[in-house]
Amino acid sequence: MEIEDPLEKLSLTPYMTDLCQSSSAIRKMDAIAKKMAEKYGKDKIHNFSIGNPRVEPPETYNKIMMEVLQDKSFYLPHGYAPNTGDDEGRKAIAELFSKIQEVEISYKNVILAAGCAGVINIFLRTVLIVGDEVIIPSPYFLEFPYYVSNFYGKSVFCETFFEEKWQINKERLEKCFTAKTRVIIINSPQNPTGIIYSEDTIKMISELCQKYSNKYGRPIWILSDDVYCRVLRPNKKHHQIFKFYKFSVICYSLSKDLSLPGERIGALIMNPKIKLCERNIHAISMSNEFLAIYPPNRLHMRALPKLLKFTSNIELYNKSQEIVENTLKKLNIEFIPPEGAIYIFPKIPDEIDEMEFCELMVENFIVVVPGSAFGKTGFYRLSFCNKPEDIQKGMEQFEISYPKVIEELRKRKKNNI
Amino acid sequence: MEIEDPLEKLSLTPYMTDLCQSSSAIRKMDAIAKKMAEKYGKDKIHNFSIGNPRVEPPETYNKIMMEVLQDKSFYLPHGYAPNTGDDEGRKAIAELFSKIQEVEISYKNVILAAGCAGVINIFLRTVLIVGDEVIIPSPYFLEFPYYVSNFYGKSVFCETFFEEKWQINKERLEKCFTAKTRVIIINSPQNPTGIIYSEDTIKMISELCQKYSNKYGRPIWILSDDVYCRVLRPNKKHHQIFKFYKFSVICYSLSKDLSLPGERIGALIMNPKIKLCERNIHAISMSNEFLAIYPPNRLHMRALPKLLKFTSNIELYNKSQEIVENTLKKLNIEFIPPEGAIYIFPKIPDEIDEMEFCELMVENFIVVVPGSAFGKTGFYRLSFCNKPEDIQKGMEQFEISYPKVIEELRKRKKNNI
Repeated sequence: MEIEDPLEKLSLTPYMTDLCQSSSAIRKMDAIAKKMAEKYGKDKIHNFSIGNPRVEPPETYNKIMMEVLQDKSFYLPHGYAPNTGDDEGRKAIAELFSKIQEVEISYKNVILAAGCAGVINIFLRTVLIVGDEVIIPSPYFLEFPYYVSNFYGKSVFCETFFEEKWQINKERLEKCFTAKTRVIIINSPQNPTGIIYSEDTIKMISELCQKYSNKYGRPIWILSDDVYCRVLRPNKKHHQIFKFYKFSVICYSLSKDLSLPGERIGALIMNPKIKLCERNIHAISMSNEFLAIYPPNRLHMRALPKLLKFTSNIELYNKSQEIVENTLKKLNIEFIPPEGAIYIFPKIPDEIDEMEFCELMVENFIVVVPGSAFGKTGFYRLSFCNKPEDIQKGMEQFEISYPKVIEELRKRKKNNI
Repeated sequence: MEIEDPLEKLSLTPYMTDLCQSSSAIRKMDAIAKKMAEKYGKDKIHNFSIGNPRVEPPETYNKIMMEVLQDKSFYLPHGYAPNTGDDEGRKAIAELFSKIQEVEISYKNVILAAGCAGVINIFLRTVLIVGDEVIIPSPYFLEFPYYVSNFYGKSVFCETFFEEKWQINKERLEKCFTAKTRVIIINSPQNPTGIIYSEDTIKMISELCQKYSNKYGRPIWILSDDVYCRVLRPNKKHHQIFKFYKFSVICYSLSKDLSLPGERIGALIMNPKIKLCERNIHAISMSNEFLAIYPPNRLHMRALPKLLKFTSNIELYNKSQEIVENTLKKLNIEFIPPEGAIYIFPKIPDEIDEMEFCELMVENFIVVVPGSAFGKTGFYRLSFCNKPEDIQKGMEQFEISYPKVIEELRKRKKNNI
């Protein structure tokens, strides 16, 4: 295409222009997957790349929404909401997290916003100044660094290791702190590894944050992305942050445990130990307004107290994980067993190139995401958010494709291709 | 309240801390109104301060939503949507604006996002670098400058005048352009004045933007906030931007013409004259994802093609405006008759202080917003988004309160109180 107008090429920021041109690993896989689907039919491709839960929302969802639609008692049922969200929804969230965190949380410490990602953005907008640093344990949820960039913050990655079961190492974390450190974002159960931070890890992070808050005279926030806090394997316990560290906030949404990611219902919960909690929530509510994330859509926000009484059939993920693990074990693939969430992050044999592996897997009908998308090469993320029967079919194909791919790549390597 | 921990006071950015402490004019009025309501009862207070439409959504709204809820044909009906929004909704918006702008618009030039304010934010995120300037005709919708601040842009205000019927003056506008100018935000029908920019005004703005784009070698965008483009008085025509200027985008939502502001359904439409339109839309869709505005909630997005076939009973606003105008005329109050939207922006007599006027009006049961909230002292915004019967009651009180307030303030002035 010929662009006669030279101005056109300069119509975006350099940052966005670069982003448009860069082909992410995920998009590369998607493009191959699309070609494969065209050639062999969509059903042949087993897509383990997506975190879009395919276990249905609670059965009562439709009934609840119908009731809300017909409820005549609400004044201006589709009108603008307060920037903190409706009090009824805040109360429901406060009640849930009072139980989870085992501490009394007032609804005044809660703000509702459109999704967990929205909550992270309004929080960062409220605490970051240009150049502030945000520590992110790596591998990480791939959007975190973009959120930090929105407000011209700097992401500082703290590497974690397979050999250490993806727990955070104290020495390595301590090296990340500087006078500019403002936030550390933790996510547990974690995307992409599925691990839960142990109580020791949480204590250690808390102590370091306190130490460097005192040293540099400005509080360092722990932002705990707890979107998977109710998506746990049997007998696994989610960490509690509020009792260990004062300057902590939790973000949460109904995207995973109720399978409603498209409906954009999220919340931020602030540690009630903070005396200026109401002032802080008021500030974040202004970011909610001015950044135009806003409270969740009114219809779902009105339904929130009722919706929160249910979850999807989360036990299906236990079954799905079991199927995946059995196949991986059979093929001698190394992995740390996930304790929650809907992902597993297996190791690629050392001599095999990650991108070549993932590309060849797609060409053999299996779509996974290269670890580099999450800041960690040599691994891949396999999402098991599908129903067990579909996971079963996919893993049968995996069992055929994986040895073929590994053999082919070893052959290529040997022949120096 | 005693705060023992000195870190607490430093837990937000200085910008947000200041915002929390500053008491906006609107909040001041709200506080007085609340006290009055406690003392005299809520029904006694006539609140003309809010832009939350109180004319109901289209009658078919509930029926449409029920249908969408029960539609089993949609794959993952509550799952994540593409970052551009669903194609069906994009097509419906493209069709509507092809008619409004009288030019063929492809759905590929449309992106759906959560509300008009969300659309403005993702657009600014995609085109502004730190320090870039955004021209905003003043008086303005009060949130525009905050959106610009989110990305460390600078708002440059171009004053408009009652005596010039709030149209933009060429000489004054031309003085606003610099090498850093990146965007001009226009809003028509306008909040708070209700005027529509004439075709001459639109042509003039377009020519200046072209001139300075060429001069400084970077395109200057016109962002046209057309949220009220279907909320017009009889025989009034909304301006068309696409035919006059290439680097233009329109933002729109269902908040006003369908009375669904709480449901967060918005769209950005890019001028099809731009050859790199798809690249640009792709970039904005990445901002939609990374800023976490996201497409509208899936339930309403799926309903969008059906919803767009209807509007609220917008004619009620004609009646409401008539009632307001009749009262203002009777009281010899000066105003420019609104041509659209749901606001009127009358003049306060020169010798009267704006804040004293608005405060005393609230104490006399009438809540309006001081003009300074919109960047223009000496005026106030009166919203007539209520139904005519409520407007009627309110204006009866206005007719009693206004002369009392003016008399009292003139007396105070005379006695130098």
